[in-house]
Amino acid sequence: MKFILENTDQKSKARTGVVKTDHGDIQTPIFMPVGTAGSVKAVHQRELTYDIKAQIILGNTYHLYLRPGLDVLEKAGGLHKFNGWNKPILTDSGGYQVFSLAGTRKITEEGVLFKSHIDGSKHKFTPENVMDIQRSIGADIIMAFDECTPYPCEFGYARKSMEMTHRWLKRCIDQVDSTEGKYGYSQALFPIVQGSVYKDLRKQSAEFVASCGREGNAIGGLSVGEPAEMMYEMTELVTDILPEDKPRYLMGVGTPANILECIALGVDMFDCVMPTRNARNGMLFTSEGIMNMRNEKWKDDFSPIDPNINSHVSSFYSKAYLRHLTVSKEILAAQIASVHNLSFYLWLVAEAREKIKAGEFAVWKDEMVKKVSRRL
Amino acid sequence: MKFILENTDQKSKARTGVVKTDHGDIQTPIFMPVGTAGSVKAVHQRELTYDIKAQIILGNTYHLYLRPGLDVLEKAGGLHKFNGWNKPILTDSGGYQVFSLAGTRKITEEGVLFKSHIDGSKHKFTPENVMDIQRSIGADIIMAFDECTPYPCEFGYARKSMEMTHRWLKRCIDQVDSTEGKYGYSQALFPIVQGSVYKDLRKQSAEFVASCGREGNAIGGLSVGEPAEMMYEMTELVTDILPEDKPRYLMGVGTPANILECIALGVDMFDCVMPTRNARNGMLFTSEGIMNMRNEKWKDDFSPIDPNINSHVSSFYSKAYLRHLTVSKEILAAQIASVHNLSFYLWLVAEAREKIKAGEFAVWKDEMVKKVSRRL
Repeated sequence: MKFILENTDQKSKARTGVVKTDHGDIQTPIFMPVGTAGSVKAVHQRELTYDIKAQIILGNTYHLYLRPGLDVLEKAGGLHKFNGWNKPILTDSGGYQVFSLAGTRKITEEGVLFKSHIDGSKHKFTPENVMDIQRSIGADIIMAFDECTPYPCEFGYARKSMEMTHRWLKRCIDQVDSTEGKYGYSQALFPIVQGSVYKDLRKQSAEFVASCGREGNAIGGLSVGEPAEMMYEMTELVTDILPEDKPRYLMGVGTPANILECIALGVDMFDCVMPTRNARNGMLFTSEGIMNMRNEKWKDDFSPIDPNINSHVSSFYSKAYLRHLTVSKEILAAQIASVHNLSFYLWLVAEAREKIKAGEFAVWKDEMVKKVSRRL
Repeated sequence: MKFILENTDQKSKARTGVVKTDHGDIQTPIFMPVGTAGSVKAVHQRELTYDIKAQIILGNTYHLYLRPGLDVLEKAGGLHKFNGWNKPILTDSGGYQVFSLAGTRKITEEGVLFKSHIDGSKHKFTPENVMDIQRSIGADIIMAFDECTPYPCEFGYARKSMEMTHRWLKRCIDQVDSTEGKYGYSQALFPIVQGSVYKDLRKQSAEFVASCGREGNAIGGLSVGEPAEMMYEMTELVTDILPEDKPRYLMGVGTPANILECIALGVDMFDCVMPTRNARNGMLFTSEGIMNMRNEKWKDDFSPIDPNINSHVSSFYSKAYLRHLTVSKEILAAQIASVHNLSFYLWLVAEAREKIKAGEFAVWKDEMVKKVSRRL
């Protein structure tokens, strides 16, 4: 994996670049749709390619490890072959799901013992086996196994957890560097900065992560309930330390406004379940603002969902029709809303990229943040 | 609406034809996907057109009347404009849903009083207002308001019900013939043959329906639990009486085998929720037989779902991937299975049409009935 830094904004830390992987290029800044169990919920792979224009999608190691399981994924020749998505894939380390989804879990220095949320079966994740699992899944970018601290989190716990995450990181690196990809293409390991909302911990963690010299770096443990301003403060502090010539990935962020603000802080890659999860709950993100599709207001508004977004669903279906499908709990409502929201997110980062290139990012960003945050 | 009878099979009553409507032609025999509340569940309109190659879809008057309601549909300019489906649409009369879905209902000579299954609100359907409702929805083919008797049904009840259905039919005809379509195109009324599984009633009803001289005729009250042989017997008896130069629509039928057998009996049009409903439950109809996608058997079968079916999903996704999505309860499983099953149904009737034209229908039909009925 290579990163080519292209443009840097004069009035902010925003930048554009290209991440080159064996499955193709990723133009940054980029948003990565979340394909939890090998499927971006309610979205066909063809729609990801031609409507949403996704350049990379995520897979969740925890989910894929439990279902379909590594035996199936290996027999398939990896996740790309299994789900038919031939562009880049990133997998998380499973840590976040182990802490948020799994039943009784026990964290030790060695790793985490947990019970499957599906059938209660017992499993163990360690830095070493999570690297092996991600080798079997075969993502282009794989993530270090870390502990994602909750918010709020006491300083003492945050510090100890960060230190363990750093020790785990060394073990991840050792494991990755002593093994090879299983399917003939390379896999880049991204370490993750932790440290909760404590500046000195974040600084220490960012420095440690930077010192590892990997092909890209991630910021974890944010967007877990802390105020947005705190998230921006931590992000800024960390991006000041992480190397400029490596892509920076802010994990699990966020709203359209969050993404624009964090692009301004020098983040290159984002992922979040919000566009798809909120779509399934009838919330639409558009170039004009946020729509609750259950609202009576859309009942006889036969105008297209969002003609500014160059996706079939956004111009083909009307607000009134989508409102009807949403109220009637039709599956098609989730499909339309998911494709639209992701198309909007990808449109937003593509626009940001163009504005950075044109030197117009700062002014545009402030206008867009207002626009995309308002309730219609 | 016009019907042009094209070919008639020498060894069966199967025939091919074209139904001409103001929204385009329908090549018969045809299967009509069910778009309950203005949406074929889990299927995009674009997929209906380009993947499934549907030529006409159904809407359910009961559902559309309750949601989005006639005010919205009229403001939209009818259902075609509302859901963006510009090819022919057929609406049922709402009778079937009133009897199967609605809460407490009371049938009188005037019509049916019922409570909405959504909010318990009280409503009345009469032959007259159901015609008006279908005028507001704006389907190309509208159905007479009838009572669909259950199975089993006592002879006395079946006779009385049929007689009332006939009186209702006269009222439907009077209403339709004294009103006009609301959106500038014509709407054809199809009367419905009833009479449960009683030969003399079916004969009497078919004769009455035939005598009405409408542009097409339907057979109702079958596929409600009676043995398949009984359904075939009733269908054959009725198609012997219904005029040859009008399309014959067998309502709510059925399995792929049912459809092939009834094409052989002279039926031209079919609808059924089976391909979509069973899809959502993980049952796939293929050119090789029936697959239960939950089956362990497909776990590492990476071959395409059904390469014989010329639909994107049928060749793009593997059995193993679809099995994984089904077991994981991913929405995409319902989407893939629905598009595939409908593509298969449309492929099947298109194949039947070609075989009738080529004079090879009878032999092919017997082979196919075996093939499509077996469990893989």
